[in-house]
Amino acid sequence: MKNRQFLLNARPEGLVKTSDFRLVEGAVPEAQDGTVVVRVDYFSLDPAMRGWMENRADYVAPLAFGDVMRGGGAGEVIASRSAQLPIGTRVAGQFGWQEYALAQPEHLAVLPADLPLATSMSVLGITGLTAWFGLHDIGQPKPGNTVLVSGAAGATGSIAGQLARIAGCRVVGIAGGARKCEWLVHELGFDAAIDYKAQDVKTEVRRLCPAGIDIYFDNVGGEILDIALANLAMNARVVICGGISRYNETGELPGPKNYFNLVFRRARMEGFIVLDYAPRFAEGRSALEAELRAGRLRHAETVIEGFERLPEALIALFRGENLGKMLVHRQPA
Amino acid sequence: MKNRQFLLNARPEGLVKTSDFRLVEGAVPEAQDGTVVVRVDYFSLDPAMRGWMENRADYVAPLAFGDVMRGGGAGEVIASRSAQLPIGTRVAGQFGWQEYALAQPEHLAVLPADLPLATSMSVLGITGLTAWFGLHDIGQPKPGNTVLVSGAAGATGSIAGQLARIAGCRVVGIAGGARKCEWLVHELGFDAAIDYKAQDVKTEVRRLCPAGIDIYFDNVGGEILDIALANLAMNARVVICGGISRYNETGELPGPKNYFNLVFRRARMEGFIVLDYAPRFAEGRSALEAELRAGRLRHAETVIEGFERLPEALIALFRGENLGKMLVHRQPA
Repeated sequence: MKNRQFLLNARPEGLVKTSDFRLVEGAVPEAQDGTVVVRVDYFSLDPAMRGWMENRADYVAPLAFGDVMRGGGAGEVIASRSAQLPIGTRVAGQFGWQEYALAQPEHLAVLPADLPLATSMSVLGITGLTAWFGLHDIGQPKPGNTVLVSGAAGATGSIAGQLARIAGCRVVGIAGGARKCEWLVHELGFDAAIDYKAQDVKTEVRRLCPAGIDIYFDNVGGEILDIALANLAMNARVVICGGISRYNETGELPGPKNYFNLVFRRARMEGFIVLDYAPRFAEGRSALEAELRAGRLRHAETVIEGFERLPEALIALFRGENLGKMLVHRQPA
Repeated sequence: MKNRQFLLNARPEGLVKTSDFRLVEGAVPEAQDGTVVVRVDYFSLDPAMRGWMENRADYVAPLAFGDVMRGGGAGEVIASRSAQLPIGTRVAGQFGWQEYALAQPEHLAVLPADLPLATSMSVLGITGLTAWFGLHDIGQPKPGNTVLVSGAAGATGSIAGQLARIAGCRVVGIAGGARKCEWLVHELGFDAAIDYKAQDVKTEVRRLCPAGIDIYFDNVGGEILDIALANLAMNARVVICGGISRYNETGELPGPKNYFNLVFRRARMEGFIVLDYAPRFAEGRSALEAELRAGRLRHAETVIEGFERLPEALIALFRGENLGKMLVHRQPA
């Protein structure tokens, strides 16, 4: 039994390339005192990974060449020297891009045994938690608010929009392509959707948010952020969750030229990092699980089969080829 | 006795010009039932006036051609049909650019009889209140915080910085010219000052705020805002009070390209309009007055003599020729 791993091979320039990673084979680790070995069955693909590959210290230390690529995953304990986590326990954690990982129990979340791993990875995973804390703690939704979500068909945006609906808000999503927009409105219950590839976003935002935007949940940055800033309601909250339009660009990018509308609208723009909420993850997960089990949260996973396809799955994520959560499912080599 | 008035003559393009205003003479108004006539002795010059001259509705209705130029002032009641405000009462209000104004008592603030009008206009006026509410409500200073203030030698910045010192913060000011910087450090007690005309702001901000900026109180926008955003401490608050570098520019201005650092620093950027705090002005004024009388707030006024020099005083304000509050003192024609 071998352990395949993807190591960081090069710092990305522009869009991530498959050659930025190197596939190697090693031995499966053995459980030490107090630790477990996890077979990672699903790998989470997230826009933030692009930043982790760069040589800058933001909120996590930069990876060195030859490090196992960083990333979240879910799987099953296959060897255990911990009484807490017997063999067969389903867990999530930051395992990196490898098929088998040695882990300490305190760094793992135990997943519900009766839910598919892929569901746990999307709704109850980091992206679901990002939506939960970003919307509730930073966005502070109130019934009747108009909420605009960009990247709305992605793993975070699709949950954030539904949570806003549950909180009594009117929700407009922005996504790329008719299929995604139909999914938002007809499956997830968004009040409206804007197809940024086919429609004029500025016109549509004005039309669909005539009284202004109370909460803008931003996953993309760029021009859409500027359009949102131009259409804020009084006392609006702009939640900076991500900026996927920026991540693969090189050189200096323009800032939001309409930022000064924060003054005229007495509005706030605020960033956050979900990892700060780690002490409250259990609270967020149980709230999300309750909504899920009550049938109030729909979700989709785009699953790419085969561990060796992790690099191309990340590229596909940046190309917007996912509906909902982008995952890779490990298959035995 | 005539009443001189400046009317809006043209929308400004670029820097305000004297020809944007027209000086006319009319009759001094007469007090009607319940109203008073105020002789305006001091006129407040404020960067926001530039926006009031434009044809866009932000937070105040745009002026029409031929309207008396909008602006705050202070003076004395010279005729009264209101029992509340007898002749001789010193008051402040939005009188516009005219020597005599008819006013309703409920729109006026009664000023302390024992303080010079110019002092009331600076520390206790709109700019002092802007500093008070902007720093305390939006900035939320905590002892030990590092506070960076731009436009620090202006009417608002100079008070905001001192209030931050009073709140137990370390305060660094940015201003143009050695004289202003010396005033900040040696007269007002700022911990340090940066002369943006002679020093490299980026280098100095890094040197003087090595642990990052907890509160950035922004009066200028532009490149300095970007430098501040690049140097935020965790959970920083960016108070967007003004953006004087923008007001006289035409066309599209770049936004703050470092806005995404709000995410990495879990920081917030928030705008406000002091007029929203009108119901709390009395509270703010009495707090400021207490600090002033206790000798904890220093202030300066740059007074230009002569009503007819109002337009040039506004231009001088945009050129940064003021130390502290820019005022025009009416002199009889």
